[in-house]
Amino acid sequence: MDNKRVVLASRPAGWVSEDNFRLEAAPLPKPAEGEVLVKNLWLSLDPYMRGRMSDAKSYVKGVDIGEVMVGQTVGEVVESRNERFKQGDHVLTQLGWQLFGSTKEATPVDGTRAPLSYYLGCLGMPGMTAYFGLKEIGQPKAGETLVVSAASGAVGSVVGQLAKSWGARAVGIAGGREKCDYVRRSLGFDACVDYKAGNLYRDLKEACPKGVDVLFENVGGEILDTLLRLMNPFSRIVICGLIAEYNATEPYGYKNLRSVLVNRIRMQGMIVFDWRQRYGEALKALGAMHAQGKLKYRESVLEGLENAPRGLISLLKGGNFGKQLVKLA
Amino acid sequence: MDNKRVVLASRPAGWVSEDNFRLEAAPLPKPAEGEVLVKNLWLSLDPYMRGRMSDAKSYVKGVDIGEVMVGQTVGEVVESRNERFKQGDHVLTQLGWQLFGSTKEATPVDGTRAPLSYYLGCLGMPGMTAYFGLKEIGQPKAGETLVVSAASGAVGSVVGQLAKSWGARAVGIAGGREKCDYVRRSLGFDACVDYKAGNLYRDLKEACPKGVDVLFENVGGEILDTLLRLMNPFSRIVICGLIAEYNATEPYGYKNLRSVLVNRIRMQGMIVFDWRQRYGEALKALGAMHAQGKLKYRESVLEGLENAPRGLISLLKGGNFGKQLVKLA
Repeated sequence: MDNKRVVLASRPAGWVSEDNFRLEAAPLPKPAEGEVLVKNLWLSLDPYMRGRMSDAKSYVKGVDIGEVMVGQTVGEVVESRNERFKQGDHVLTQLGWQLFGSTKEATPVDGTRAPLSYYLGCLGMPGMTAYFGLKEIGQPKAGETLVVSAASGAVGSVVGQLAKSWGARAVGIAGGREKCDYVRRSLGFDACVDYKAGNLYRDLKEACPKGVDVLFENVGGEILDTLLRLMNPFSRIVICGLIAEYNATEPYGYKNLRSVLVNRIRMQGMIVFDWRQRYGEALKALGAMHAQGKLKYRESVLEGLENAPRGLISLLKGGNFGKQLVKLA
Repeated sequence: MDNKRVVLASRPAGWVSEDNFRLEAAPLPKPAEGEVLVKNLWLSLDPYMRGRMSDAKSYVKGVDIGEVMVGQTVGEVVESRNERFKQGDHVLTQLGWQLFGSTKEATPVDGTRAPLSYYLGCLGMPGMTAYFGLKEIGQPKAGETLVVSAASGAVGSVVGQLAKSWGARAVGIAGGREKCDYVRRSLGFDACVDYKAGNLYRDLKEACPKGVDVLFENVGGEILDTLLRLMNPFSRIVICGLIAEYNATEPYGYKNLRSVLVNRIRMQGMIVFDWRQRYGEALKALGAMHAQGKLKYRESVLEGLENAPRGLISLLKGGNFGKQLVKLA
């Protein structure tokens, strides 16, 4: 068994490039007492990884140069020195961009209830992000209008379906007609606006004739600034991601913040880790929706660790269509 | 008894000028059944008035051209056709920029407990704004650091003193050394930063060595954008006013909104009218502080209705020092 890993070779200025990564051979780790040696099967690629490549202050420390890129993985236990696990068990870990890793921090996952990769998506961190952001901050009520950006993505697709299940009207924003069709037809959103069509304000206004009560923001930049003009009194904005800013060398200048005052908007930033004590609650709710066939979900799969850098770059440019994964084995 | 009033003559583009107002003679109103005829003694000048001069969408309709400028007043009942009031009673009303007015909407005020003008300031709308914004949104805890802009003003001075009384550290922002000295020495804030000194970020950082847990924002623009860089995880921002933007022809572009995500900030807009059902609670709390000599307060008084336009213009430029009032009689 040969191990391979992708490390951070240099920090990007603006857009990430493949030069920022280095694929290298690595020794097969030996599990210490209490650890399991895991063969990673699936690697999740997520927008937050862009932040970790930078050394700017953020909510967690960035990746050091030469260090393995961070990431959540689902894998199979190949050797266990932890009594909670045996060989062949499937686990969710934070082993990052590598084929094998050794860890104490593993969570069992059940591949008979849902495909293993789902625990990196609609039943994993993205799904829980949607669940807690909506339940704790967005709080859509029946009849209200919710807008979610990056609506065809791992978080956005769950946000809209959850909001619909709670009786709200769900409007998505996505890039291009194909994604918008998917959001409306397959995910069942009430409407979807193509931000690439060039009429963002007009199209959003038309899709939200009663204004916007909840905005679940994954993108930021012009999308957020435009939506500020459409928010209703006492509306809520969940700031979950600002992917439009991650690669910009200059931060976006938001011009419509006055709407927060005029409309008494509550805008709140969120990071799913803040609810880690309640992951069980979210998994139960999302698992039930999945079991009933009410949680539509789409994956975008690349094969091979060597393609992970390309996958992340594409994701940051909106090139993925559905949850971006790398199949490692 | 001759009546006079100031009406809106034209809408300002950018800064307000005296040309936007017109002083005119007016008939003495006749109170209808249920109304009182009030001789206004004090007129309050407040930043929100700038918004009413514009026809941009806001939380309430603007003043029409030719209409009396809006404003809160304290006055004396000269004729009553309402059984709740008799001649000589003091009342708080919304009669606006005029010497006499007739209204059904009057609230009795007690001039023996505090000077009548205080019901337009620390015991009035500005005091209540401070109370509800802090209690319901800012929620400073003992030991936390609160920053308030326009700290020597009617709202800001109460915000800092309330926060101190709840055990928080209070840091003010004001324009010029004289105001800053007043905020520290007379109001008892722990520190005050002079935004005109040209080192806003550095001075705020020095005044808030543990970062900022609550920002009570009355000004906006560069002050808010700078403070976004200093906010702590799970901090709160009360958006009470954005006076820096009211006269700008181009809105300010906020560049540090990413801090809302990284630090999971809760930012919320507020308008005191939303708590009108609970004014009694606020008046009780603030009245008790005043009675104990724990609510320091300063007024900036202009004499004569004809000076109200000049007073508002000065207020919008930060020229007032303490609560801006016009003494009408």
